[in-house]
Order: sequence, then C-alpha cells, then structure tokens
Amino acid sequence: MTISKKVFSVAMAGTLAISGLAINQASADEKHKKNEIRNVIFLIGDGMGPTYTTAYRAFKDNPKTPMMEETKFDDYLVGMQSTYSHDKKESVTDSAAAATSMSAGIKTYNGAIAVDMEKQDVKTVLEQAKQNGKSTGLVATSQINHATPAAFGAHDESRENYNQIADDYYDDMVNGKHKVDVILGGGTSYFERKDRNITDEFKKDGYSYVTNKDQMLKDDNEQILGLFAPKELDKKIDRPQEQPSLKEMTNSALDRLNKNDKGFFLMVEGSQIDWAGHDNDVVAGMSEMEDFEQAFQSAIEFAKKDKHTLVITTADHSTGGMTMGRDGDYKWDPASIKAAKKTPDYIAKQIAKGAPVEETLKKYIDLELTPEEVQSVKDAKEKSGDVLEIDNAIEKIFDLRTGTGWTTDGHTGEDVNVYAYGPGMEKFSGKIDNTDTAKEIFSILEKSKSSFGK
Amino acid sequence: MTISKKVFSVAMAGTLAISGLAINQASADEKHKKNEIRNVIFLIGDGMGPTYTTAYRAFKDNPKTPMMEETKFDDYLVGMQSTYSHDKKESVTDSAAAATSMSAGIKTYNGAIAVDMEKQDVKTVLEQAKQNGKSTGLVATSQINHATPAAFGAHDESRENYNQIADDYYDDMVNGKHKVDVILGGGTSYFERKDRNITDEFKKDGYSYVTNKDQMLKDDNEQILGLFAPKELDKKIDRPQEQPSLKEMTNSALDRLNKNDKGFFLMVEGSQIDWAGHDNDVVAGMSEMEDFEQAFQSAIEFAKKDKHTLVITTADHSTGGMTMGRDGDYKWDPASIKAAKKTPDYIAKQIAKGAPVEETLKKYIDLELTPEEVQSVKDAKEKSGDVLEIDNAIEKIFDLRTGTGWTTDGHTGEDVNVYAYGPGMEKFSGKIDNTDTAKEIFSILEKSKSSFGK
Repeated sequence: MTISKKVFSVAMAGTLAISGLAINQASADEKHKKNEIRNVIFLIGDGMGPTYTTAYRAFKDNPKTPMMEETKFDDYLVGMQSTYSHDKKESVTDSAAAATSMSAGIKTYNGAIAVDMEKQDVKTVLEQAKQNGKSTGLVATSQINHATPAAFGAHDESRENYNQIADDYYDDMVNGKHKVDVILGGGTSYFERKDRNITDEFKKDGYSYVTNKDQMLKDDNEQILGLFAPKELDKKIDRPQEQPSLKEMTNSALDRLNKNDKGFFLMVEGSQIDWAGHDNDVVAGMSEMEDFEQAFQSAIEFAKKDKHTLVITTADHSTGGMTMGRDGDYKWDPASIKAAKKTPDYIAKQIAKGAPVEETLKKYIDLELTPEEVQSVKDAKEKSGDVLEIDNAIEKIFDLRTGTGWTTDGHTGEDVNVYAYGPGMEKFSGKIDNTDTAKEIFSILEKSKSSFGK
Repeated sequence: MTISKKVFSVAMAGTLAISGLAINQASADEKHKKNEIRNVIFLIGDGMGPTYTTAYRAFKDNPKTPMMEETKFDDYLVGMQSTYSHDKKESVTDSAAAATSMSAGIKTYNGAIAVDMEKQDVKTVLEQAKQNGKSTGLVATSQINHATPAAFGAHDESRENYNQIADDYYDDMVNGKHKVDVILGGGTSYFERKDRNITDEFKKDGYSYVTNKDQMLKDDNEQILGLFAPKELDKKIDRPQEQPSLKEMTNSALDRLNKNDKGFFLMVEGSQIDWAGHDNDVVAGMSEMEDFEQAFQSAIEFAKKDKHTLVITTADHSTGGMTMGRDGDYKWDPASIKAAKKTPDYIAKQIAKGAPVEETLKKYIDLELTPEEVQSVKDAKEKSGDVLEIDNAIEKIFDLRTGTGWTTDGHTGEDVNVYAYGPGMEKFSGKIDNTDTAKEIFSILEKSKSSFGK
C-alpha cells in the first residue's frame, strides 16, 4: 500500500501531537513480535582483551590504503564488561570464574566450574535453554572439557577435574535428556579413558562420534560428539588438514541445532587466544584471533538470515599484559607476524627435534632475519636444547620487530569489549559486568519460553 | 492534554499501519527541536587507556560491598575509538597527532599541532565554533600550550614550539576576535617571557589575568587567562591550596562560557594521567584519574540541567603499557595506593633534598612498609641520590604491592573508551576512529549554526 506523504501528513497532523505514548506502545508491540529471540549464540574469545582486538585490526590492515580497515568485530561493538572474580586474593579472574559469571550470573572463586563460593551448583544458561526444550551446543578449540565450555555444561569445584567434567557432559541430565546436543572440540584423552569410554556411551544413546573434519562434515545427525585431538586442537596456522577450523565447527553446530524449531543455545570459544597470551606469543595470538573472527562472521551471517538469533561476543579477561608498543618506541608493526607461516612453538619443536636452526627459521618465517636474530635461536638451542627456551628466543624476535610488550604469563584485569547483533542486542550495550551477560540471557530465555517453548 | 489510551488506539488503528515513514519524519522533527545542541564539552583524559579506567574503578571500590561500584564514567560508555597516527614509522600516536585528529578530523604525523602531513594548517572545531559566534575555552592541568589544548587553539609544525603556540593563542584571530575566550591551566613561563609578555597583551584586550585559585573564583569576566604554575600544575594529591582542581577550572569555564546565548565549545584535558603513565607511577595515575573524573562529573551535571549540551569524553591513547596483574599473579590490589598521601615523585624530592628515608616514607605512606621496601629506597638514595632513582624505588613498592605491570615509558596503541551524554551522543557510539570525533563535532556545529548562529 502506498500513500502520498503530503496527504498523510495533513491527515495525521492533528492526531500526531496527542500522545507519543500510545504510538510507542503500538510500535513496541509490533517490534516485540518481529524481534522474538529464538536462538542465542554466545562467542567467547578467551583472553581477548582490548589490545588483542586492536592489534588484530592492525595485523589485518591493508598498508596500501590510507585508513586502517575495520575487522569483522568492529561493526558490532556495543560496550565493555568488567571481569573481576570474587576470589579475595585473586581479583584478576581466571577463565573458570569468568565463564561461571557469564553462564550463571554470579561471581565466584577462580577455578570454579558453575559452582558458587560455597561450591554449590548454580544453574547455567545452557541448562535453562535445554529445560526450555531448545537444542544446545558447545564448541571450542581447547579440549571441550576445559574451563570455559565446562562452566556452561558441567559443575565442579575445580577446573582441574577434567575427567569428572567430561563425565558430567554425559551423566548430567535435564528433563531426562543429555544436556548438550552438539559437542565439538579437542579432548579424546579425557573421553576415551581406561576407566571409562564416554564416546561409546554417547554413541549408544544416538550421538554420532567423529574424530576428524571430513567425518564431521559428512555427518548430519542432530546430536554429535566431535573430538579432533587428544587435548587441544593445533593453533590455526599450525593446524593439520584433519582438524576443523573454529568456523567449520561453528557452522556444523549451527546446521544441527537449527533443526529444532524451539531454537537453540550455542557457546563457541576461541580458546587459544588466551594460550597464546600465556605463552607471550603474538604470532599465535593473531592466528587464534583470525580463527575466532571467522567463526564470529559465520554466527553473524546466520543471525542476519535468521532474524531471530542474538549473537553476543566478548572475552573472559585479557592475558599476558600484551601491549602495542614497548621500551619507549611509538610503533607497532605487524609485518613480521604476516611473514610467519607457523607459530614459534611449532618451529621450536622442529628445531628441538634436530632440524637445523637457520634453514628451519627460513622455511617458516618469510623474512630476512639478521645474523643476531638467528644466533639468538642457535644460542637457545645450544644452551639447553629445551623447546621452551627455543620458543622464547623465536618469540623475542617477533616481540622486538613488532614492538609487542608483555608483563605476565597470567591474566590481566582490564575491561573487555562486548559485541552484539540481533534482537535483544541493546541489553548488552554500555558498561556491563560479566554477570550481566548471563542475567540477560536468562531473561531472554524466560521470555522465549513463553512464546516458543511447550 | 490527556486522552484515554484505549480510545486513542481505536482511533489510530487504521492510520498506524499506513506509513511508519511519515510518523518517523514528524517525530524526528519534534525530536530535532528538543535535541538542539548548543554547547559541546569535549573532555580528554590524556593517556587514559582501558586499563586506567578499569583500575580506577577498583581503586575507588568500597571493598565492603560484594560488587564493585561503578565510576562516574561507567554510565556513559558508548564505545571505543582507534587512535593510530599517520607517522609511518610511528603507528602508535603521540598526543599532538591524536589531538589534531580529534580537533580537525584528519590523520597526521606525531608532533603535529593542527597541521596536516604537509604541515599546512587545518581548521579545528574550536575555530569553527568561534566562527559560528560561540564562546570557546581550553582547560588543562599541563601548561595550557601543551600538545592537546594546542591542537585545538593553535597551529604549529611542532609541539615543541611552546612559545609560538602561546603566541598563537593571542595572535590568531577569528572574525577579528581572539580565538579562545577562557584559557585555564599552567604555563606562566611561556606567557610571561623576556621577549614578550602575552599576559599583558591579553589584559589590554579585556581579559582577566589570574594566577591562583582565589583570583579565579572571585573573577567573573567572560574572557580570562588563568595560569597557575610556571609549567604544569602539581598532581592532584600533591597540589597546593593556591592551585585549582580540574573540576574548579571546568566549573569556572562553564560559568563564563554559558553567558553566550549562541553557546560554546569547551575542551578540558586531564593532562597528567599520561604523565603518570610515562613515569610508570600508578599512584599518580589514580590521582589524576580522580581529578579528571570530578571534572567529568561537573560537565555531566551541567549538561543534565542545560539539556542542550553534548558531553564527549575519551582518551588520546594509553600510556606506559600499564597492566592490572604482573609476573603471573592473578591480583590487582589498590590498597597501597589508597594509603599514599603524596606521589612517589613528591616523596622522592623530599628525600633527595635530605629528608630521612624511613620517616619520610612513613609520613606520606600510611602503610607498614617492610624493612626490605625501606631499604630499597635507602639504597637508591645512597647509590646516586638522584630524584629519579629514588622515585623509581618508591614506585616499585607500589607496583609490587598492587600488581601493576608496565612495558614502556611511551605510549601504547590499543583502542580507548568513548563516553558521551546529551543530544547527539549516539553519533559517537560503537567503534569509531579518533578523526570521527572531530567530524561529528563539525557536523553538529554546522547544524547549530543554522539554528543558533547569526
């Protein structure tokens, strides 16, 4: 239907001034129906503090254009969240406490997996989604029973209880059903154990079990356990063909979860941004940021088509005290990172195994290294031959060439970025706390239960 | 006028569905009038990266409540901005290039004061405001001819040309008038020189000239030059009674500028957050954050009453590579900062002048220091007696007690927070670039010119 704007304006002129309230009420009702939230995709870049997202923009920048290109994240920035945990002596959070805040809406101690300060289980948004009849998924590049996914799908007083957490994924039931329908990540060593083979138990209950990318892509079962490495997957730039990318796992999860007309909850973790930070390895950090960005992009594309999907993306904390700039220099130059074909850790392992230093560096780093740089790696090899020493020497080359500083092999406490897209995104804007993310998701699940559930 | 919602709904039912466009157009017109922007207050926390705003929240926290209290800033977070400059070799910006981006909307080289890569003058938002007939002000705790304020009120190929910049404030005219009506900060040594006394020239032209807080508070002239120290003011916790706080200068500026019914543009800089960062001094950092927060609060209160004032607050970059957490420890504990009555620099100066180490530390730091901590300062005194060495030793005590790390005595490149309040605030939300702030202010000035100007 079309109508001349002028005629309409005249006809409306009298009524328009009467009451903004009634118009707002009517359009809010309209909007509510349109903006119904059926699915929630929660992406967590573990350790992805503000320096990582900024450095990643510089890393992906086309140096030939005058302005820096935006990352896929940038369009969706809505605010920041505080991350502190309730461990008195450890006000800087670990991944377990932070993930519990984001899964259950409470502050707790470092190491806690969906339990409170008294070690009592607290309900998670994933469990609530399952209770509402939605499908659920956990995707990570670490072992899938690592702290972040664990705090959504298990309960334990300690993140170190890897076997018990893996057991929880099978044993904990919601309304007589397994809690997590799609489980994709690393961790065969925790699921195929001498004392118990959880993979067989899942298979018996109708889950597919896959251990490489091709199997995952060929399978279309709604319930799946996919474990692609004994513990964590390799870093993106080191990853062998058989291991899927975070994006491929995310897409595979979305395809399955989307079959439930009651909707789904999916948590996706870019697990090893954090591990790169712990190792003070800027090359690995950018590798894992890229893996995460591509998964984020998939989630956004899904949500744009679906129109009933909320995407929230944030970090649990920052790691390593990484800084762009060090030692008084006003530069951060990612050129050397772009030249790295493998992570320093990967290269160091080759050298520790006996590969010749100079040729190996040349093979994996597309740069003219200085004799001093090559010598520093030779010295590390001769001094101890230890992978870690060699790794540190190679990392140092990248730190000095890029201008990257570090202050710790642990976490740091600054607020982290929050990105959101889709209906409900406004709930996550401005400065929030990490407990607010879970609280808002619970509130969304409460509403969607009444419209889509039962 | 009131009307029953139900009756109204029935009456509107037919028309509501016809065209959202016409309703939006009409209500946009309505909103435009209501949201007219007459005044812009632009507050810049120099060096105030994300770690500073988070650390400040922890510093101000009441440890007796379970959750961390929000700062005055938190309610107004709308996004973040990128800060890189166009100096090829120095992708991490300095304050001059960043301020030029925020004052003129262009990228330039480090050191540039409102000039482009070819060292040509570029128009600033302050100059545009003056051209529109608005009043203008610059307030800072550094010398007022330092990089940030300079890039709004002067033009120079180098930030180092302090005298020329001071001259510009007097010599550069817009429509035959001085460019800046209210000039408050430090810097007598640059304005009262042997070769030229700019303060006399300003007085001759009707400006008040004041050099201490009382004079400033008693004066109510619309045009004023207030210089409260030879160079910078002292840090907040070191500041003598005669020097005003940033809040007092801000309020004094607002009182004067608000007399112009065409509105005003005011830039307020918390200058020495950055200087604390350069010095790797977390005590001074929190001191200057507090000074800045109080000025910010004044600006917000003014805007809330006025309703036609836009407040934008951000940083130019971060400084020092400060991190909450260091050396693997998962803590950041501000207790020792709360115990400091003066900055390490202040205390170090006393000790270097001959004050006894232990008593002086005790006098200014309300803590039981360990014998090792006291000895470290004694060693620094005995070793060189140099203020800087003693300062570093005292800073180290706070770094280790708080868990604060540093990677540089220069700047770092991560995105910085953007806060906004008032009509037009939505223009600054999400991820923006520092050039966008000036572009949006120019666009606002263009609009307000047509409604308030001439």
